[in-house]
Amino acid sequence: MNKVMIYDSTLRDGAQAEGISFTVEDKLKIVEKLDFLGVSYIEAGNPGSNPKDLEFFERVKNLNLKQIRLAAFGSTRRVGISVEDDANVKSLLTANTPVVAIFGKSWDMHVIDILKTTLDENLNMIKDTLRFFKDKGKEVVFDAEHFFDGYKANSDYAMKVLQAAVEGGAGTLALCDTNGGCFPLEIYDIVKKVCEKFDVSVGIHCHNDTGLAVANSIVAVQAGATHVQGTFNGFGERCGNANLCTIIPNLQIKLEMNCIPDENMAQLTKVARFISEVANVIHDERAPYVGNSSFAHKGGMHIDGVNKNPKTFEHVDPTVVGNERRFLMSEVSGRATILSRIRDVEPSITKDSPETKQIIDRLKELEHEGYQFEGAESSFELMIRKELGKYKPFFDLEHFKVIVSEPPSGQGLSSSAIIKIKVDGINEITAAEGDGPVNALDMALRKALERFYPQITSIRLIDFKVRVLDSKSATAAKVRVVIETTDGVSTWKTVGVSTDIIDASWKALVDSIEYKLQKERE
Amino acid sequence: MNKVMIYDSTLRDGAQAEGISFTVEDKLKIVEKLDFLGVSYIEAGNPGSNPKDLEFFERVKNLNLKQIRLAAFGSTRRVGISVEDDANVKSLLTANTPVVAIFGKSWDMHVIDILKTTLDENLNMIKDTLRFFKDKGKEVVFDAEHFFDGYKANSDYAMKVLQAAVEGGAGTLALCDTNGGCFPLEIYDIVKKVCEKFDVSVGIHCHNDTGLAVANSIVAVQAGATHVQGTFNGFGERCGNANLCTIIPNLQIKLEMNCIPDENMAQLTKVARFISEVANVIHDERAPYVGNSSFAHKGGMHIDGVNKNPKTFEHVDPTVVGNERRFLMSEVSGRATILSRIRDVEPSITKDSPETKQIIDRLKELEHEGYQFEGAESSFELMIRKELGKYKPFFDLEHFKVIVSEPPSGQGLSSSAIIKIKVDGINEITAAEGDGPVNALDMALRKALERFYPQITSIRLIDFKVRVLDSKSATAAKVRVVIETTDGVSTWKTVGVSTDIIDASWKALVDSIEYKLQKERE
Repeated sequence: MNKVMIYDSTLRDGAQAEGISFTVEDKLKIVEKLDFLGVSYIEAGNPGSNPKDLEFFERVKNLNLKQIRLAAFGSTRRVGISVEDDANVKSLLTANTPVVAIFGKSWDMHVIDILKTTLDENLNMIKDTLRFFKDKGKEVVFDAEHFFDGYKANSDYAMKVLQAAVEGGAGTLALCDTNGGCFPLEIYDIVKKVCEKFDVSVGIHCHNDTGLAVANSIVAVQAGATHVQGTFNGFGERCGNANLCTIIPNLQIKLEMNCIPDENMAQLTKVARFISEVANVIHDERAPYVGNSSFAHKGGMHIDGVNKNPKTFEHVDPTVVGNERRFLMSEVSGRATILSRIRDVEPSITKDSPETKQIIDRLKELEHEGYQFEGAESSFELMIRKELGKYKPFFDLEHFKVIVSEPPSGQGLSSSAIIKIKVDGINEITAAEGDGPVNALDMALRKALERFYPQITSIRLIDFKVRVLDSKSATAAKVRVVIETTDGVSTWKTVGVSTDIIDASWKALVDSIEYKLQKERE
Repeated sequence: MNKVMIYDSTLRDGAQAEGISFTVEDKLKIVEKLDFLGVSYIEAGNPGSNPKDLEFFERVKNLNLKQIRLAAFGSTRRVGISVEDDANVKSLLTANTPVVAIFGKSWDMHVIDILKTTLDENLNMIKDTLRFFKDKGKEVVFDAEHFFDGYKANSDYAMKVLQAAVEGGAGTLALCDTNGGCFPLEIYDIVKKVCEKFDVSVGIHCHNDTGLAVANSIVAVQAGATHVQGTFNGFGERCGNANLCTIIPNLQIKLEMNCIPDENMAQLTKVARFISEVANVIHDERAPYVGNSSFAHKGGMHIDGVNKNPKTFEHVDPTVVGNERRFLMSEVSGRATILSRIRDVEPSITKDSPETKQIIDRLKELEHEGYQFEGAESSFELMIRKELGKYKPFFDLEHFKVIVSEPPSGQGLSSSAIIKIKVDGINEITAAEGDGPVNALDMALRKALERFYPQITSIRLIDFKVRVLDSKSATAAKVRVVIETTDGVSTWKTVGVSTDIIDASWKALVDSIEYKLQKERE
């Protein structure tokens, strides 16, 4: 199996993405995770342009890393300054990494218009800078910025730039489609020519401005590249960088090359989600391989096909990348899927039972109101029970009142809730304070129920999401709240919809508690 | 310029996406918009599998469409049934469209394992069904399901399937990568072979399970295909279909082919957003060409380069697709960008002024708390004013109290708010009811302020978004609220962050009103 070196730049180029900003802590967590996954290199910062990165390089030395090689990223020396006197070069040395990645211009227009120097001086800047680091014992990666645009404008000069880098001691020539505007067939041809001309390792670095970053990376490898730069989840400036979560399984599972140890491939989905979480962005659920929808089947015929033979509508087995197959609950998912859920509750029901139609009608009605059960199967199960008359509430709400005050009352908590419930004819009234109204209500409800159901002390909410459904109605908009709850053993998700966020949260909270109690009753 | 027919399936294959369900109204709106944009075909439903689609085909006749050709989609006749007797074929006729798209199996495994019939009967099913519609005067598109997987498994049989379709009268052979698992170079080779063998138009239909749907569509056109199927925003089952918002400009702007009238290209971003909105999904802001981030520059060096010459870091001019260039406000966006915003408020400030450092420090502090000003420039401007001492509040809050009751009090409104403010030493206390706590508070604040600032009656909120920042803290999680406000002439966005959703909304509301009053004061 051919080895392809995976060079991750989530922490450097990924941090150029709109909405992403990593703390030093965040970066340390991600380095550990990618080391564990088996990525070959991590480009972790640009100490010359971001002083926060120097703190990172200081602290990363304390991690106990297994195999990943750390790279610091920076530019060549500036025009007319010696390498030794260049401030950026000095801060790169301070980072003290085994690998440095130096970017230089390979498009003549950039040399003239942006650097405002001669084509020859640019070659010297590249050669001098690389040689400097090579002589200090570093592994040197040369990032040929705008290589493909440069090659198309002036192929002779672009090749001279690579030649200068090789003479300076580059171990890898990373060819960059910096503007993300190139197409697969031209990338293939150009990479092939570079591989034929130079003996060192050739790399590829793509951006996704034409939606082709993954394709361009793949064809580059097919043309001979052995080093692929990208970011996890495709984070990056503008439309993002080449997505390593797609490239790694494409190369390893489909093209039978080696990127990470085989035994780690099943961690891919988990690592991708972890990085979205640390970056604090919504994970792309439609992403290839690692999204929640990646193997989610909705069309009735497709569900039917996959049940007969998964290969009919799945290009790979989802478990190989640590993901799972899902059959979605919706009006187009077909009666068979819904029926199987109904029969989990009441096995005697068939597709022609009147209850089946009744539940499908109710499902459509709730979907119309803004409910979605695709991510909240526990609420769906409770709905089935209610429709089948197989549901007995665990408590009745008499009333609640939530009060939010500004300025906050004692302890800085802004909200308090009073709740009165009834269980088997016995009333309980109680109150709680919280950080915001939903938190106060959540606290008060649990407190009131504990007297009757002590087992609920073991459950806690682990996720809380709010989606504004018709944001154009502004503060009177309908919202959908999805919460995820755990008892330490299993987790379940429930949903509530209302124009009032407190009411929507209340519905999801009640379902969450009732689902747990229902499971125990059985 | 070569013409490429764009065949949109947002309403049919797009509706297989997780979380998407179109009403008949939604579908009619989208048809009108795509007709206006100049897309050649729209596949609007599958009347055999979704009865709701029949209502759509009835009502679409009343639209005054300019040029788009409507297609209904369905399968070949079933095994062992005559075409005339097949229920699905009948409902396709009822749709009464000028175009029908018939899908059939081209992978031998599917014929044997799923249809459970002979390879010859499958050929007959295809030929008979196409001939039936051709004889009724329809334009017939044949969707060769799993064509590429089929070709790789048994190329002879896959070619026989296409031959049967041509004999049945197919005007277009649409080759489908149904499982989305194929790679660009193989797609190129296979499409080329098909184009050499058949005289009819060849089409391509790709799914994105390996992140290659756009690339595969593009190389298919380069190999000779002249018909491209896909969906707007790449909606579709699992990882989605080929994204027409990327393919259209890739082909037309970059490869100089003709997909839609040139003068409509500048509507692309608007149409893409419109469709996301109708589908009620969050628009992918990182999408090529049509996202809010597509031309958003954050790195200091990139902003500098684009200021000197946009071609340095942009592969196309964003206005060509109706999008715009943005420079982001963040710690890595460089002092120059932040400075230009500061100088809008106070032109005498330079990059070395102590105020510049003070504002950058405050920006970092707020970003650390969870603020993001990239989408809330108005709050950023107010922050600059506050730091510069150029801000005089328009009112002081004495206190507010919001009460949410369940069951709701009169009129079904759940929430009420009491607020007391002070303007120039004069107190105003008032109250309002609302649909949820934020709405009640919003109403009460405006009511209290109107006495002093009657001009605020002209402003209204048009968008309200809630993002849970650390959803693992569950109901005590920190939330970021972004609201968009208009006075009918311009719109502005403001942001608030807090663990209490009422408090976060309050901050954004106050900024929104103060920003308007500040503009008028100047």
